[in-house]
Amino acid sequence: MAKSWANLGVDLHLEPTGTTSTGVRRGLTDALRSAVRTGRLAPGTRLPSSRALAADLGIARNTVADAYADLVAEGWLTARQGSGTRVGDRAVVPPAHADPPRRTPGRPVHDLIPGTPDLTSFPRTEWLRAARRALAAAPSQALAYGDARGRAELRTALAGYLSRARGVRADPEHIVICAGISHGLRVLGTMLRARGARTVAVESYGLDVHWRLLTEAGLRTRPLPFDERGTDTAELTDEGAVLLTPAHQFPLGDPLHHDRRSAVVDWARRTGGLVLEDDYDGEFRYDRQPVGALQGLDPDHVVYLGTASKSLAPGLRLGWMVLPPALTDEVAAAKGQADTCGVLDQLTLAEFITSGAHDRHVRAARLRYRRRRDALVDALALHAPGIRPTGIAAGLHAVLRLPPGTEQSVVQAAAWQGLALHALSTYHHPDAPAATPDALVVGYGTPSERGWTAALEALCRVLP
Amino acid sequence: MAKSWANLGVDLHLEPTGTTSTGVRRGLTDALRSAVRTGRLAPGTRLPSSRALAADLGIARNTVADAYADLVAEGWLTARQGSGTRVGDRAVVPPAHADPPRRTPGRPVHDLIPGTPDLTSFPRTEWLRAARRALAAAPSQALAYGDARGRAELRTALAGYLSRARGVRADPEHIVICAGISHGLRVLGTMLRARGARTVAVESYGLDVHWRLLTEAGLRTRPLPFDERGTDTAELTDEGAVLLTPAHQFPLGDPLHHDRRSAVVDWARRTGGLVLEDDYDGEFRYDRQPVGALQGLDPDHVVYLGTASKSLAPGLRLGWMVLPPALTDEVAAAKGQADTCGVLDQLTLAEFITSGAHDRHVRAARLRYRRRRDALVDALALHAPGIRPTGIAAGLHAVLRLPPGTEQSVVQAAAWQGLALHALSTYHHPDAPAATPDALVVGYGTPSERGWTAALEALCRVLP
Repeated sequence: MAKSWANLGVDLHLEPTGTTSTGVRRGLTDALRSAVRTGRLAPGTRLPSSRALAADLGIARNTVADAYADLVAEGWLTARQGSGTRVGDRAVVPPAHADPPRRTPGRPVHDLIPGTPDLTSFPRTEWLRAARRALAAAPSQALAYGDARGRAELRTALAGYLSRARGVRADPEHIVICAGISHGLRVLGTMLRARGARTVAVESYGLDVHWRLLTEAGLRTRPLPFDERGTDTAELTDEGAVLLTPAHQFPLGDPLHHDRRSAVVDWARRTGGLVLEDDYDGEFRYDRQPVGALQGLDPDHVVYLGTASKSLAPGLRLGWMVLPPALTDEVAAAKGQADTCGVLDQLTLAEFITSGAHDRHVRAARLRYRRRRDALVDALALHAPGIRPTGIAAGLHAVLRLPPGTEQSVVQAAAWQGLALHALSTYHHPDAPAATPDALVVGYGTPSERGWTAALEALCRVLP
Repeated sequence: MAKSWANLGVDLHLEPTGTTSTGVRRGLTDALRSAVRTGRLAPGTRLPSSRALAADLGIARNTVADAYADLVAEGWLTARQGSGTRVGDRAVVPPAHADPPRRTPGRPVHDLIPGTPDLTSFPRTEWLRAARRALAAAPSQALAYGDARGRAELRTALAGYLSRARGVRADPEHIVICAGISHGLRVLGTMLRARGARTVAVESYGLDVHWRLLTEAGLRTRPLPFDERGTDTAELTDEGAVLLTPAHQFPLGDPLHHDRRSAVVDWARRTGGLVLEDDYDGEFRYDRQPVGALQGLDPDHVVYLGTASKSLAPGLRLGWMVLPPALTDEVAAAKGQADTCGVLDQLTLAEFITSGAHDRHVRAARLRYRRRRDALVDALALHAPGIRPTGIAAGLHAVLRLPPGTEQSVVQAAAWQGLALHALSTYHHPDAPAATPDALVVGYGTPSERGWTAALEALCRVLP
């Protein structure tokens, strides 16, 4: 019997009943018929040979052959010389509870929703090459349950990369890999709540999914005032933490003013509060003013959060937290082993960074996005000279200020033209003090290279 | 400038200060020196050409060349014709907070801890082949933020596989991909708590990490009595759910008795309670009695939980839940997008199953593990005839009953011999009614093929 396990083509669970030879044959026939009828065995599936199935079930080969013959006669199976016994093509009764497939809303023709990079430029060949090298080099033990912080190879590669490219003071021992910034925030929210925090200050503009994750962790979010110098960090009081996008405010696009960078670090030192720095697109800066990570100012009070979602693809579900050393164990425990990310992708990203492929990819992507940004600015100057693009020194999106009262009508006109767009109000915290001006958030990084020009033209058509 | 972004070798964040030409040179020199001194630029790193860096920073090329020359003179950089300017080899001051590396306890020579398959037999070549095919076939949109349930390709492949191999009544619409069974339990715990459940019944023996995950979700775990027919499901009362390992009790190894399978389904129908079926190693059954999934009896009241951790590797962090249709949306919401697993591994596993590689791999592994089990039984009969192995019809581990009072001394003797072993008491719920007999849980699936024989010999040496 042992041999048959290795030689059979397909794994099949059957529970034939009966003990006499006739009874066994009938039991097997019933079990197979039922498996075909209910769709458990799909049309075309090749069955094990009668010899192999007999060995598996510990019954006589003839009994299996007879059962197969019965079912061929009934039309459930087909037998052809050379291709074995297969499930026939007759209609299959759908399994219990087969709902009609969910209807997903048709994707719009042009997608300018921010938050997703151009996925057609994902470096598939380079990624697979890195995967092959990484898997060839990995010890078998890398495939076991591992360190809740993530693989050391990736933490080491990230420490070097974040240090040189973003000015982060990073030590591999105090990096925790997560499944993106949202996942990191859920873990940090759990940790903060366990430490007794009640409130996290957030920006007036941001992602509602982040606010919701903190709320679900049992924390209140309190928006800070926002003005032309960015988020007013001088308004921080006794919050347990503050969530900021200092390099490139999301979605408004400006860096946090220098005074306010200092103010938030002073607040953290004075009160013991924690700064959560969301550096979601730090790789993409087009103009010459460098904006390093806030974390470099005070690694003991700032958690740096980064992600591969903008530089590579959200589908990788890979992000990282660079933690104050005193918090690493607590955060790793709050994350736990249940949430560890797949090691193969971690090892692949480590190899991708170490080999230089990541830098090459980011630089090529930066050039493409910069050209799109320039094309957007030029097109606006030509077709909608009254619309001012802002927040364009970096990132994959721009904010277009609109005449007062026109935001909703523009978004609706765009929808009618198959153009997906978000209004700035989408990103406004419900409790934020000031009203939001009329504006669009245009994700110019989202379309494919081929689709970008048409998307831009469609945008120009709907602008007032 | 645009060109230089694409041509530079390495991404470097610098914040030189100064506005006059001399000031800019000094600022750049200081910034580079500091990056080398603190280790942000590792020894041997190749710097951008002076032309490229000048373009990036928007300063004169001569200023960069002068700064490089200063640092070469100081010994921080080296310049060689043809290989460009590189960071020198001098000692680097470790970054702030560089703790001594954590000491991980030396791994034992022989590892018989259950729960991990033989990782040296992970099908690396086949997996990479599947990854290449999957990535070639995937639409770009597969790399976006996706369905919280996971990729449709994998849910469809699993529905077919679980139906034919495990008797699960599975519809792709009601499968949710998770990062292993622990992750699934955390999500289910959150969902149960949100529905008002307070208590989950568990088995007297199991994994403490599972009990802890439920506790962290705000649920109490109540162990059910255990006897020779398995877990006494007739003792279920008003719990919100029960967590069971019906096909192969972990770690004791027997299938749940037929009467008790019926009793738990009756209980669920009568009370609206939910059955959580942990089918952690359903692929590995060596004897002829088939034990299908409990879920097949009542898909409306049983959540089926499966994992690639035993059939492939825990490091993949891939598992799945087959849900009662009425619960799918709630569970997907409790999981949320923050926790979605990486799509590349999901697509690869789908291709691995669909191509038949998974069945081939499982059958080959089953043969290897069955041989190990037989060798274990034979070795015990020869060297320790008083020790009875139980729970050996399936799975990757066996339970060896020991003479009363010897459990701890055997585990300690094993540790001295470099043999990692778990006592049965490790898996005993602290509130379980009956005392646990003296026994070992021997994970014979854990060692490599090369290491297995020596591990078995070491085991025989420490048995009483």
